[in-house]
Amino acid sequence: MEMHQSLVAATPLINGSRLSERHCEMARIGATANGGVNRQALTPEDTEGRRLLLQWARARGYTAAIDPIGNLFIRRAGSRADLSPVMTGSHLDSQPTGGKYDGVYGVLAVLEVLETLDDYNVVTERPIELVVWMNEEGSRFGPVTMGSAVAAGAVSLERALATNDARGTSVSEALAQQVAQLAPLESRPLGATGHAYIEAHIEQGPVLEQEARDIGVVSAIQGLHLYQVEVRGFEAHAGTTPSRHRKDALVAASALIAKLRAEVADPADVLRFTVGRFEVAPGSPHIVPGKVTFSIDLRHPDPEHLLRTGERILELCAGEIEACTVCAKVMLRSSPVQFDTRLVAAVRNAAEHRGFGYMSMVSGATHDAKYMAERTPTAMIFVPSEKGISHNELEHTDDEDLAAGAQILCDAVLAAAAMEL
Amino acid sequence: MEMHQSLVAATPLINGSRLSERHCEMARIGATANGGVNRQALTPEDTEGRRLLLQWARARGYTAAIDPIGNLFIRRAGSRADLSPVMTGSHLDSQPTGGKYDGVYGVLAVLEVLETLDDYNVVTERPIELVVWMNEEGSRFGPVTMGSAVAAGAVSLERALATNDARGTSVSEALAQQVAQLAPLESRPLGATGHAYIEAHIEQGPVLEQEARDIGVVSAIQGLHLYQVEVRGFEAHAGTTPSRHRKDALVAASALIAKLRAEVADPADVLRFTVGRFEVAPGSPHIVPGKVTFSIDLRHPDPEHLLRTGERILELCAGEIEACTVCAKVMLRSSPVQFDTRLVAAVRNAAEHRGFGYMSMVSGATHDAKYMAERTPTAMIFVPSEKGISHNELEHTDDEDLAAGAQILCDAVLAAAAMEL
Repeated sequence: MEMHQSLVAATPLINGSRLSERHCEMARIGATANGGVNRQALTPEDTEGRRLLLQWARARGYTAAIDPIGNLFIRRAGSRADLSPVMTGSHLDSQPTGGKYDGVYGVLAVLEVLETLDDYNVVTERPIELVVWMNEEGSRFGPVTMGSAVAAGAVSLERALATNDARGTSVSEALAQQVAQLAPLESRPLGATGHAYIEAHIEQGPVLEQEARDIGVVSAIQGLHLYQVEVRGFEAHAGTTPSRHRKDALVAASALIAKLRAEVADPADVLRFTVGRFEVAPGSPHIVPGKVTFSIDLRHPDPEHLLRTGERILELCAGEIEACTVCAKVMLRSSPVQFDTRLVAAVRNAAEHRGFGYMSMVSGATHDAKYMAERTPTAMIFVPSEKGISHNELEHTDDEDLAAGAQILCDAVLAAAAMEL
Repeated sequence: MEMHQSLVAATPLINGSRLSERHCEMARIGATANGGVNRQALTPEDTEGRRLLLQWARARGYTAAIDPIGNLFIRRAGSRADLSPVMTGSHLDSQPTGGKYDGVYGVLAVLEVLETLDDYNVVTERPIELVVWMNEEGSRFGPVTMGSAVAAGAVSLERALATNDARGTSVSEALAQQVAQLAPLESRPLGATGHAYIEAHIEQGPVLEQEARDIGVVSAIQGLHLYQVEVRGFEAHAGTTPSRHRKDALVAASALIAKLRAEVADPADVLRFTVGRFEVAPGSPHIVPGKVTFSIDLRHPDPEHLLRTGERILELCAGEIEACTVCAKVMLRSSPVQFDTRLVAAVRNAAEHRGFGYMSMVSGATHDAKYMAERTPTAMIFVPSEKGISHNELEHTDDEDLAAGAQILCDAVLAAAAMEL
């Protein structure tokens, strides 16, 4: 991860220790006993996190505005006010037992980029805008990526504002409270588009670590299909019922899953096929299972491939298997998103020029970048997650990986600002 | 099922309609809305059922006694009081949503046999004793077959009496109440042994019906091993974790079960291998399972074979499979019980002579006969269960099957009474 300074001497170098300190400070807000954070959307902790960020931003003279769904925009002005901004950001909200890096990294890395540009007296023509998306995690209020979905028009503002948490508090009420506490804050209308959008994020998977790479050059967010499969047999006495008379739903479901796995097997290891839920009824050790219900989480970056595989799964999950009947239904079909090839190339070039180990990859998880990509040229940068652990208080990324990602973000943002897109 | 009267003209013929009427009357006690019964051990309904039986018995002049754990003995005297009795019976208690035949049949069939012997003025040298075992089902007070286990010394009287139901009422209290309500009733000491023991029961499985046989000649109660297997993988994000980096506990557990099933596959279909409980953690559709716990219910009539298979299962459930670690533990090992070949032959001969379709079989479920077999030559007779349904309000056996079984019981009891054993 040694930087080839000779090649990049002219470009700004981010300050890794400042970035790490910012992470430590932010992690104190909503800190949990086990080293994670609980800073769910629109809670007092979320408000506190945003207040701290705004404090850092105002100290630099950046302007801030909030849209009707609570997405926060912090702008470092460019020399030409008539040009659309390069947007970049992520989220500050966390899972209830979340880690210190998921989302936060993509916000603090941008702050580090903006401050570095200040430190180097870099003037860009285009403004650079840090976006803090509201409620990416969806743990308090569903669905996930609420702020970016509303900004993109995929979810209506009314529906989002009317969403209640488990205690009956609505997004509308919680947001009004946060806005009051962050006042004064400029209002801006809904709808976020820009010249480009780049999001830095921890990988939340083990690939970069296992492949010993510093930077993930993310070319797409894969699509996600969710299926629910029901296998119906017949409950029977485990002691009195011979095999030939059984309709064992567990045996049938296992055989079906083995068949499905063989069918979708992907030597390139790009397709993701997961049975995460598997429920057996009645679940007594002495009764042959009469019913099994299981889930299939299916992901692939290629929409055609995903759809074809999904259809094949539905074909195989119909009719009879091992004397049991099978039926399946589609619970969710979310299409893959391809990022902008020119922006992805800018990220790759930056990693190449800085001499980092990098690899092309597809995001397995969804991100706010998914909605941005619909209307703005978009790319993402991943940094390694230790052991791939995420949505977990143990989530960890090394300081030097945080710094490497922020440097690539800095380089890519500058490249994007100078690009015709 | 036509009886060859020419062959058996000299022997008493049971009265099938009387037997069916007795079942109807008994089924009114604790009747449920869905056509079943709820007559759990030592409840007012159980007492009421025993009272009705005693009323029928006393009308015939049979004597009755109860032992300290509540097993009820109804005796038709023989000509020689010095000879040990032929014992025969089953239980009157039911599951909370039980059927009209499980246990009840083996009691009422004996009553029918005794009354038939009266009707034909048959005098036996040996007494014939109808036993009503206390708490066979174990649904209110555990364990199952409590009365016969205590009589055989397998469970201590003190421990059984001290057992509480869910409301904190002990067997001791509930039994004292029942005994008071059934008074006067002669007391007899613990310990039930006799010249022979024969128990008639519904099959509780589908084999007789599917093989179109009237009578099951039961040669043994199979042994039961219960194992618990734990497969540990590693929880991971379903979207971000490639197959090659997964330790998917569900995939490993499924592969293990397929391997175990292949290993224990029995072309004769005698061995029973059931995975009835299968629990996946964390059980989220979007998380690769980190842990699976499953049960193995393993049964076989041959103790050597059962033990060998059990040991092989433990061998296979150790170490690693599909990158996950596996370990297993023994939860229960109950040995098979072989019945007395001479008594079993007596049952077979009776079925043969009466011209019934019959087949040799092993009891998959346990019965009070298991404990009797330890100290008294024992056999069992099965009659068909419609669709094999049992422990269910839908439990059903046709009247003509009830009659056929009672006839074989009558013939076998008389044969046993005349046998040297």
